[in-house]
Amino acid sequence: MVKPIKLQAPYLVFVGNETNPTFAKTGLGIVQWRPELCLGQLRLSENSIDLGIADLTLEQALDAGVKSLIIGVASIGGGVADEWIDTLAEAASHGIDIIAGVHKSLNDVPRLREAANISGSALINVRIPPEDLPVGKGVKRTGKRILMVGTDCAVGKKYTALALEKDMKKMGLNADFRASGQTGIMIAGLGIPIDAVVSDFVSGAAELLSPDNTDDHWDIIEGQGGIFHPGYSAVSMGLLVGSQPDAFIVCHEANRATMVGWDEFKLPSIGEVIERTVLIGQVTNPEIKCVGICVNTSRIKPEDREDYLAGLSSKYGLPAVDPIINGTEPIIHSLN
Amino acid sequence: MVKPIKLQAPYLVFVGNETNPTFAKTGLGIVQWRPELCLGQLRLSENSIDLGIADLTLEQALDAGVKSLIIGVASIGGGVADEWIDTLAEAASHGIDIIAGVHKSLNDVPRLREAANISGSALINVRIPPEDLPVGKGVKRTGKRILMVGTDCAVGKKYTALALEKDMKKMGLNADFRASGQTGIMIAGLGIPIDAVVSDFVSGAAELLSPDNTDDHWDIIEGQGGIFHPGYSAVSMGLLVGSQPDAFIVCHEANRATMVGWDEFKLPSIGEVIERTVLIGQVTNPEIKCVGICVNTSRIKPEDREDYLAGLSSKYGLPAVDPIINGTEPIIHSLN
Repeated sequence: MVKPIKLQAPYLVFVGNETNPTFAKTGLGIVQWRPELCLGQLRLSENSIDLGIADLTLEQALDAGVKSLIIGVASIGGGVADEWIDTLAEAASHGIDIIAGVHKSLNDVPRLREAANISGSALINVRIPPEDLPVGKGVKRTGKRILMVGTDCAVGKKYTALALEKDMKKMGLNADFRASGQTGIMIAGLGIPIDAVVSDFVSGAAELLSPDNTDDHWDIIEGQGGIFHPGYSAVSMGLLVGSQPDAFIVCHEANRATMVGWDEFKLPSIGEVIERTVLIGQVTNPEIKCVGICVNTSRIKPEDREDYLAGLSSKYGLPAVDPIINGTEPIIHSLN
Repeated sequence: MVKPIKLQAPYLVFVGNETNPTFAKTGLGIVQWRPELCLGQLRLSENSIDLGIADLTLEQALDAGVKSLIIGVASIGGGVADEWIDTLAEAASHGIDIIAGVHKSLNDVPRLREAANISGSALINVRIPPEDLPVGKGVKRTGKRILMVGTDCAVGKKYTALALEKDMKKMGLNADFRASGQTGIMIAGLGIPIDAVVSDFVSGAAELLSPDNTDDHWDIIEGQGGIFHPGYSAVSMGLLVGSQPDAFIVCHEANRATMVGWDEFKLPSIGEVIERTVLIGQVTNPEIKCVGICVNTSRIKPEDREDYLAGLSSKYGLPAVDPIINGTEPIIHSLN
């Protein structure tokens, strides 16, 4: 039976020499959303970014029972930087897993491959989906599912899903974030990079990502792409059909008029995304419905924010929040 | 610049020891649709299926200038059968390409790999897409495109596309079949196996498959899956959005009520497929329209066929034909 990628906690988060927070998003995300899984950070210099957790040497982390070293920064070019290799090889030689979301394979670095071979540790690239994924069956699964969908890429789908998980757990609800992209997988420690799955198996992979569960359980599924997107709609389609969501949230960035990187494509309206998602989602779940709107409002004036969200809420008859500012509680109340 | 898979003609079609026509569909298809590219067939025994073209030894084929040996049969298990290897290795050692649509790589057979390495011939698996495919851009391309879509898998999309190409060429029109699946690629000698492409790049692959062309030119694009399919709709979505078709034909099998292999899924109606295809296709081509219906009528009584097709034609206001019996000319007249 094929399973999603699963990482072993606790983690040592590797920051290397990185000084620019933009390139440390993954590390910052792991510490923000899963502090309980992080023993500490390993920085190669005093000037490296501080993720705000304990500085540990590799030896200290080993003494504390670390299971995985997660590369929490991106190198120029997306590969394994030369100055990282001593530390990574040393870690692998002690039998701890090395986890990365790099473009090239960790296995292509001979010293890492040899160290891992000898110690039996795993070199895990969260960009690489499990092998032998099945074709989607479309059979109804037990438990409940909520999917993030977007008017575009990069509108806060992952953030919204993680915030929703946190808020639902705080309210005592039974819910789990399900990661469909590499950063999400590194945060959750579990998942499938859906956009890297061969198209024949996308909905099958989505089915594996949110398997049967108890009746009261919600899978909170990270969305990908956008159903109107000229480049990525196939990913969104397979994820939607395979997830068979009972509910979905539309994620949007206020004041975005065209698709990022696809400037000649006008952004669909929230209403169009709701209508299209319901139409397509009904293939595997006739009960699918939109339960809320989550907007990144950072590009509108703070004093206009409340009116803007109230306007959306009234127009669509749905709770509308900025999850960073308001939290997601109003949406959770609309789940049954 | 990445390009579709391209095969070198003329071909020697390899039949091996196969005696069951069901397992020789590819060879039969190549001979049916591209007889001008076939020098002859190579059969390993007198009892092997006869494709109806000249029997040639490898030596005769080499004398006649063969460029590729195409494996036109499927083995049990989908691999390279042991009894084929002598012949294939001999062919490869003479510098001709070996072309297959097998599950395992031809390169995994050491004798083939060695022979090809020495002679410089290529071992081409038409199931493996080109590397470094781009993400779809959605930019309008010149020339015209017609896509086959289906109410389900295996409803005659490839046959319809090939019949349409033949009929359009007969009428003096400028048209080319564009293969999106392995058998189609072996027939056309050109194409991309869209269902084997990673989901992020499906629409980009479809864009490569029907590049800019002259204003009078029609790309006739082989369809895949079905837009309502619980397993394969991601493939259909990416192909539709990337193809930006001006026109499409709905392919259907009369009397099919549920999806083959997905029995609990009711087949969508032809009208539903038209409506959904137009909705989604408008993302990259606002002018998309349905121009005809092609039905495999083999499961209805011959005496009911005409009434059945006339009923569909009247219901949808479109020409409706069985392409095997009627040809596709009525649909071609509806193209502008």
